[in-house]
Amino acid sequence: MNYDNRPIGVFDSGIGGLTVLKHLVRLMPGERFIYLGDTARVPYGNKSPDTVQLYARQCAAFLRQHDVKLIVVACNTASALALQVLQQELPVPVIGVIEPAARKAVQATTNTRIGVIGTRATIASKAYEHSITAYAAPTTPSIYSVACPLFVPLVEEGWLDTPATRLIAEEYTRPLRESNIDTMVLGCTHYPMLAKVLAELMPNCTLIDCGECAANDARALVKPAEGTHTQINISMFVTDQTPAFTDLAERFLGFSVGQPERVSIDHVLDDKGQP
Amino acid sequence: MNYDNRPIGVFDSGIGGLTVLKHLVRLMPGERFIYLGDTARVPYGNKSPDTVQLYARQCAAFLRQHDVKLIVVACNTASALALQVLQQELPVPVIGVIEPAARKAVQATTNTRIGVIGTRATIASKAYEHSITAYAAPTTPSIYSVACPLFVPLVEEGWLDTPATRLIAEEYTRPLRESNIDTMVLGCTHYPMLAKVLAELMPNCTLIDCGECAANDARALVKPAEGTHTQINISMFVTDQTPAFTDLAERFLGFSVGQPERVSIDHVLDDKGQP
Repeated sequence: MNYDNRPIGVFDSGIGGLTVLKHLVRLMPGERFIYLGDTARVPYGNKSPDTVQLYARQCAAFLRQHDVKLIVVACNTASALALQVLQQELPVPVIGVIEPAARKAVQATTNTRIGVIGTRATIASKAYEHSITAYAAPTTPSIYSVACPLFVPLVEEGWLDTPATRLIAEEYTRPLRESNIDTMVLGCTHYPMLAKVLAELMPNCTLIDCGECAANDARALVKPAEGTHTQINISMFVTDQTPAFTDLAERFLGFSVGQPERVSIDHVLDDKGQP
Repeated sequence: MNYDNRPIGVFDSGIGGLTVLKHLVRLMPGERFIYLGDTARVPYGNKSPDTVQLYARQCAAFLRQHDVKLIVVACNTASALALQVLQQELPVPVIGVIEPAARKAVQATTNTRIGVIGTRATIASKAYEHSITAYAAPTTPSIYSVACPLFVPLVEEGWLDTPATRLIAEEYTRPLRESNIDTMVLGCTHYPMLAKVLAELMPNCTLIDCGECAANDARALVKPAEGTHTQINISMFVTDQTPAFTDLAERFLGFSVGQPERVSIDHVLDDKGQP
């Protein structure tokens, strides 16, 4: 089989998915990436399953127009609520961020007590619980889930290590600390930015970065490009040109990507929901 | 002139506008109200002017389909970025939340030092500064503006008076307290929910509720219904049926409104942007 030089598509409700893209680029430096952030409708985490599915299908349809060979759903909410419908509809492989992290958590725990933190929608979907339970079978793990809706705005404000952030993190993680978990899934792509505060609060707990796990799975699916490539090749699209994007993108990715291109994806599906 | 029995239209990016609706209902109990919350695309506060204008025009077009006699833009971001275009385009009066609050602040201040807090987009628009300056002329007031982007998520979490909320409010209001303001505009419809914490931090400061000011202006425009009406008449529409809506609505309004009707407004304007 020859090397497939089509790009890898990655989408997220906004900028959080850039923490996933960061690992994808690190692990597959020879690949071309198309990133779409649905910044006109961000966040997905407090929207209904119907709406999240529609938005995810529009994002995927846009990426398909760029002839991608693989789609990474770099958003926990969309992975929880829309992965299955995307995998059924699309002729290319689709990877979410939940199953890879759930598998890693099951491998990492030694006392079978696992914590999961995420947005309200991700936690309400119970997607991590189902996935962790499935991977752990026949063992039955104890799973403790907490929605942490204030973490995303704190990260987007750049309040990564302020007294307020510590207080809120202490509050959210209290039930997890009391449950004596030894492994915690950061079930939202923004949360790795809070890893320092969380690690200090839970020093004996393995933190699982869902983006890193998904990037590992993506690498296993893609035949490596030949030779060594060091030039980073990312085409960046957003549905709204928000003032904070460039700064936040640099903070999330660890390098600068310049101004993204703005696109409209509201009409990428027809009235019947077809591309 | 006979009493005009058409309803009053009110829209917001989500639920914040319900603090405005609350005052409208209190001041005009005989009126019918159509409320639209664009919960599928909330929040507007971190989106670009173009996108906010498009969304506001779609909201207004939807309300116009219900033959409203007056539109209240119960959202500071939309008032800051889209009021003028709505007033130019629509054949009915359109009231925003900024000018009424700016006028009230100018009347309330005695030392001509006024603070304004709001979302990032509202503060960046400088809409309050322009409006306050215009009303205060020929006096030149000193205006101190601070964006408080964490307040909306705190309110939506119901963290109205927690230690973290106090800490964040202390941080945000520090420059305002140091500036010796005697009047502060709560330039976001969510912020009246934090009035207790803010009043404790700034005991010598008059807090201006933009929704109450806008409701006063709306009443002045509408010929009162005859007789006494005590039945509250609100038709509630949302663009996404989010799980938290009913609870939050009750908390914001002070009474229960039941389940809202979900509508789609993405296609309410044609390709040329016409209704």
